[in-house]
Amino acid sequence: MNTLGNKLRVTIFGQSHAPAIGCVIDGLPSGFAPDMERVSAIMARRAPGQNTWSTPRKESDTPEVLSGLVDGRTCGAPVSMVIRNSDQHSRDYAGLKRTPRPSHADYTAMMKYGDDYDVRGGGQFSGRLTAPLCFAGAFALQLLEQRGVTVAAHIGRIAGVSDTAPDFARVDRDELEALLRKPFPVFSDEAGMNMRMEIEKARMDCDSVGGVIRCFAVGLPAGVGEPMFDGVENRLAASLFGIPAVRGVSFGAGFAAAGMRGSEHNDPFCMDGNRVSARTNHAGGVLGGITSGLPLVVNVAIKPTASISKEQDTVDLQTKENTSLVIHGRHDPCIVPRAVPVVEAVTALAVLDMMLE
Amino acid sequence: MNTLGNKLRVTIFGQSHAPAIGCVIDGLPSGFAPDMERVSAIMARRAPGQNTWSTPRKESDTPEVLSGLVDGRTCGAPVSMVIRNSDQHSRDYAGLKRTPRPSHADYTAMMKYGDDYDVRGGGQFSGRLTAPLCFAGAFALQLLEQRGVTVAAHIGRIAGVSDTAPDFARVDRDELEALLRKPFPVFSDEAGMNMRMEIEKARMDCDSVGGVIRCFAVGLPAGVGEPMFDGVENRLAASLFGIPAVRGVSFGAGFAAAGMRGSEHNDPFCMDGNRVSARTNHAGGVLGGITSGLPLVVNVAIKPTASISKEQDTVDLQTKENTSLVIHGRHDPCIVPRAVPVVEAVTALAVLDMMLE
Amino acid sequence: MNTLGNKLRVTIFGQSHAPAIGCVIDGLPSGFAPDMERVSAIMARRAPGQNTWSTPRKESDTPEVLSGLVDGRTCGAPVSMVIRNSDQHSRDYAGLKRTPRPSHADYTAMMKYGDDYDVRGGGQFSGRLTAPLCFAGAFALQLLEQRGVTVAAHIGRIAGVSDTAPDFARVDRDELEALLRKPFPVFSDEAGMNMRMEIEKARMDCDSVGGVIRCFAVGLPAGVGEPMFDGVENRLAASLFGIPAVRGVSFGAGFAAAGMRGSEHNDPFCMDGNRVSARTNHAGGVLGGITSGLPLVVNVAIKPTASISKEQDTVDLQTKENTSLVIHGRHDPCIVPRAVPVVEAVTALAVLDMMLE
Amino acid sequence: MNTLGNKLRVTIFGQSHAPAIGCVIDGLPSGFAPDMERVSAIMARRAPGQNTWSTPRKESDTPEVLSGLVDGRTCGAPVSMVIRNSDQHSRDYAGLKRTPRPSHADYTAMMKYGDDYDVRGGGQFSGRLTAPLCFAGAFALQLLEQRGVTVAAHIGRIAGVSDTAPDFARVDRDELEALLRKPFPVFSDEAGMNMRMEIEKARMDCDSVGGVIRCFAVGLPAGVGEPMFDGVENRLAASLFGIPAVRGVSFGAGFAAAGMRGSEHNDPFCMDGNRVSARTNHAGGVLGGITSGLPLVVNVAIKPTASISKEQDTVDLQTKENTSLVIHGRHDPCIVPRAVPVVEAVTALAVLDMMLE
Repeated sequence: MNTLGNKLRVTIFGQSHAPAIGCVIDGLPSGFAPDMERVSAIMARRAPGQNTWSTPRKESDTPEVLSGLVDGRTCGAPVSMVIRNSDQHSRDYAGLKRTPRPSHADYTAMMKYGDDYDVRGGGQFSGRLTAPLCFAGAFALQLLEQRGVTVAAHIGRIAGVSDTAPDFARVDRDELEALLRKPFPVFSDEAGMNMRMEIEKARMDCDSVGGVIRCFAVGLPAGVGEPMFDGVENRLAASLFGIPAVRGVSFGAGFAAAGMRGSEHNDPFCMDGNRVSARTNHAGGVLGGITSGLPLVVNVAIKPTASISKEQDTVDLQTKENTSLVIHGRHDPCIVPRAVPVVEAVTALAVLDMMLE
Repeated sequence: MNTLGNKLRVTIFGQSHAPAIGCVIDGLPSGFAPDMERVSAIMARRAPGQNTWSTPRKESDTPEVLSGLVDGRTCGAPVSMVIRNSDQHSRDYAGLKRTPRPSHADYTAMMKYGDDYDVRGGGQFSGRLTAPLCFAGAFALQLLEQRGVTVAAHIGRIAGVSDTAPDFARVDRDELEALLRKPFPVFSDEAGMNMRMEIEKARMDCDSVGGVIRCFAVGLPAGVGEPMFDGVENRLAASLFGIPAVRGVSFGAGFAAAGMRGSEHNDPFCMDGNRVSARTNHAGGVLGGITSGLPLVVNVAIKPTASISKEQDTVDLQTKENTSLVIHGRHDPCIVPRAVPVVEAVTALAVLDMMLE
Repeated sequence: MNTLGNKLRVTIFGQSHAPAIGCVIDGLPSGFAPDMERVSAIMARRAPGQNTWSTPRKESDTPEVLSGLVDGRTCGAPVSMVIRNSDQHSRDYAGLKRTPRPSHADYTAMMKYGDDYDVRGGGQFSGRLTAPLCFAGAFALQLLEQRGVTVAAHIGRIAGVSDTAPDFARVDRDELEALLRKPFPVFSDEAGMNMRMEIEKARMDCDSVGGVIRCFAVGLPAGVGEPMFDGVENRLAASLFGIPAVRGVSFGAGFAAAGMRGSEHNDPFCMDGNRVSARTNHAGGVLGGITSGLPLVVNVAIKPTASISKEQDTVDLQTKENTSLVIHGRHDPCIVPRAVPVVEAVTALAVLDMMLE
Repeated sequence: MNTLGNKLRVTIFGQSHAPAIGCVIDGLPSGFAPDMERVSAIMARRAPGQNTWSTPRKESDTPEVLSGLVDGRTCGAPVSMVIRNSDQHSRDYAGLKRTPRPSHADYTAMMKYGDDYDVRGGGQFSGRLTAPLCFAGAFALQLLEQRGVTVAAHIGRIAGVSDTAPDFARVDRDELEALLRKPFPVFSDEAGMNMRMEIEKARMDCDSVGGVIRCFAVGLPAGVGEPMFDGVENRLAASLFGIPAVRGVSFGAGFAAAGMRGSEHNDPFCMDGNRVSARTNHAGGVLGGITSGLPLVVNVAIKPTASISKEQDTVDLQTKENTSLVIHGRHDPCIVPRAVPVVEAVTALAVLDMMLE
């Protein structure tokens, strides 16, 4: 279903070519005055067409708030928001129902919803649905800041190029705020340059590349989360897999932990002044589902964009024969940079939800 | 919290040194006659002390069913089960509250529950709590088989040694059943041998190693799952992170997808007789949260066991000073083999829950 | 929170004087083509200003569907809908925060949300929020009809005047459809006349009256519902208490059962042709939380409208002194007739949700 | 399903003739030391065979705590408890599957679960399952007292005899504590005597009587609860309908509100010293789903016991013919007195759950 969260509950609606997309945010504390410019800024980071490395399609994601704010402050009622879809040109999408695009949800959506599935522009599976997620996340990010928690992500990897990783045990608010100011959020600008070259190469080849986004939350108190099935990992993973193209979620050292020895992976506790800290933070700030007070570190694997301009093999569902298709239009060769604010938004929503419980 | 699932709901209870551990399984279809020998077999695969490569501690995990079965058949009422804890020797655990073990939940549990946290043997965070999970999963595995779905996992990697990976698009029931019969479930017995050597080396070094478990479900129909936040990935990840020591969950190509090009990662559809299939299955059988009918492939990263015999640095929470500790007792240098049936159990529970919805 | 249902999930948003109110309906089966004229008709029955016995305020509840329908058919994506609020005149509501209206939610909302609560027109507690409930319910009513289930309610009582009650064990589709065609749905038109006289008397006295709505669902199969906490009664009651002014919910004989003997209250089973039926239906079609196949009968007590024109005592929250207030404007002396379609809508949503599970 | 609550989650299991019944309580604050004598006392009030007016069957409801308590204090892990069923004599219950008892869940359970339904002693629908509810409720009652909230109920009515009702706006802790000390909790002992006579008359006639239980919670702060579908009424009703034999739930004036004028039903606010109070409390302490700080008043209608010794008409499900049956054994002619602690327990659980959220 399209609802995220327990105490802070976000419901997303819309399809790429419906009259509108939007969201309802229930459970926000009353008396909160969101900075709407920052909301716009986060949404702008997600929007396509902002940079040379992203998709050329232009969307005007102007959210209209329909309820929940009185004189710019939350009143306790759900905040609802809609964004009109302007770009509903009459291109023929019917063919996509007959010859499903490889690695798109077209095929599985038709298996679930039948012929009534709205295939236009990816329907409800369109990346465009992440715009309302960013809107809601922008509220959460600000509420977290009021509680002393900063959330920011960097592009850990694109294609074969890795960013330098910070010290997970020591990454701090200043480093994260610096990331948030960058249009292409990496710690190493050289790595960033190389990543953009990889994206450009993929574009030239009518192809696409994926990557890894690593998101941090610093300032979290110890003791947030629940054991077993409502732990920080469970809740964050359940949320982050809601972002299209996410193929993996891991914490701290993640899959690399599998190759480490215990003596290497274990994070020795140590005092940091009067505060309990640890020398390393391979755990990514969570032990047994509960925060340790060290930075939360979550890694998100993003697959290469499924939409590429190359001819691809597929099937004709009508004739039940193998065939091929070319997806027309200009495609975003790498959604990873634009997915960064989405990962931040969803992380913020999940973390705030757990803190409000 | 300690409850998993929507329509099929499993509640786990107990601590390592409480009188008992157990579970309640609500929502099982009535009239199901579980093969209790197979339930025992799955639980035995998880139990420590069965093999040279696992922990020497012996547990007698004899489950007693208290309700829900009449003449061996489910009657519609919740199935409840308890396992008595016999091994409650009076070792002094109080010290662990003062000097928390690195990378254990001791510290975070105390941050959450305070001094009343039951630290003995890891309390509610003990790996022993996976025994009732296996019990419940054994029911799910059998119910899935009745629906034509087989679930089985192999050890994909331990330390630096990788098993051969099957063709994700073609892995079938026979291969999975062969895995289920192996005490050390790998496709390549040579790789398995090398893995066991790595475990043995870690034991000699008073250290531990981690690994990756890859779990498959074949026979799933297309169309299972929901978009966005209730997709197959969301639900499986939320469940699998409930298993202690899991640090990452990914699907199909997982984090490797981040390094692939779209033209390489996309799975071209093709006809397999009259059935729609695909040439590759990098997606791991899920697109947009919904099953495609191809094998479901989920990868689970397991960290090296936190309990090692080496001296480790930690803090004294009372004096607020750095100190060190040695965890006495014989430790399991690698829980990965024993975690295999747990991953299968949890995968089966999550998949069945989605199919029942 | 503002979300109803498990598999069929309705989220309501808006305040009386926000730019809009609306709802999101998630979980509708795809391929359903709602008859939008019938949707309008149900909404019109709820809307004020339609009849002499109801409020003179006119609302133009024109719903705009923003997503989820393609060419008039559900596509699997959530159906979202907004109704613009036109009637946002600049009356001064601030006084109501200082001198709360007796038996309104003003006071408790301020205790919960503080001074930011949107008091204008009752804010999120306004009866106007039942318009989107009727919209969603209209979908559910049609989907239930496709499954052979008819839902309709009559006004069981207003002030001291009772309608004749049908035989709960024999009430059928024809009787219910006759009710649905009546602007003032009662079985006895004479009783209806007397009820309207009571309403008129209350209006003359600047006062208000309440009543009881009894809602039926015929055609339900036996076996719907769950034991204990997810029974038909639990789910219906949890839903129906979401309607403003509802003070009680009971099933079949309801509170009258408390005065009956077992030999009188028990419903003797009997054959009705080849079908199991019962001589009486004091149980209201539910035993142990599960439907029996007999008509579902639920009674809903509606309190007299809190807004009356008489002077009333209250407190001044600023000076902490007793004071009095007069609520200006013309008030609806009895919301019971307009609540009938809302009760039908919510009953239909809850019943369909349970059938879809 | 058999789970109640969000933050404080109680799962009930067992059948009347299974090896055991029990519960799991998840979400209790750690460091709570329940007074187990008071737990026993509450369970004893519910147990049959304690008084002349109740059922002659004797149950020994000795709960064994299996987890969650260390040295008598909650440790954060779920508290689990089992009660062994001793009274499992081999009476033949198979006949009840063929000729279902009027107004029992036998018939609907068989419609849902088929022939595997455990009909012995009412299976999972047995009133015996309220014993673990009382156990869990006893924890909640003590935790509420620590928060200054007292919960107690009186028998408002049995057959035609009504107890005197207290002033809903003024009922206080002392009055409630006096109720809790009474074996037959009524305000008027004369009314209590007459009620017992009605019960005795019903017993003589091999019949049964029902009644109304009215439960109070005093000391609740204003502002507890949520609007719309998670209000105090919604949550309490959803919980209370989980008690077998409950046919109606209402708040404050309840169904009588339907016959009142607004000017009579509205509760005028007034100052009580420096505290906002109201002259009357027809609302029962809740407005718009949120507590007002006045006493919470909830009324629960209990139907007459379905099990009576008289011959009753039913059907033979095998031959599909009308027939009759006599239910052998000695029956409780009125479960209302024994249901009082169950209503208190469930009210306490639901109220505490909302306060913990």
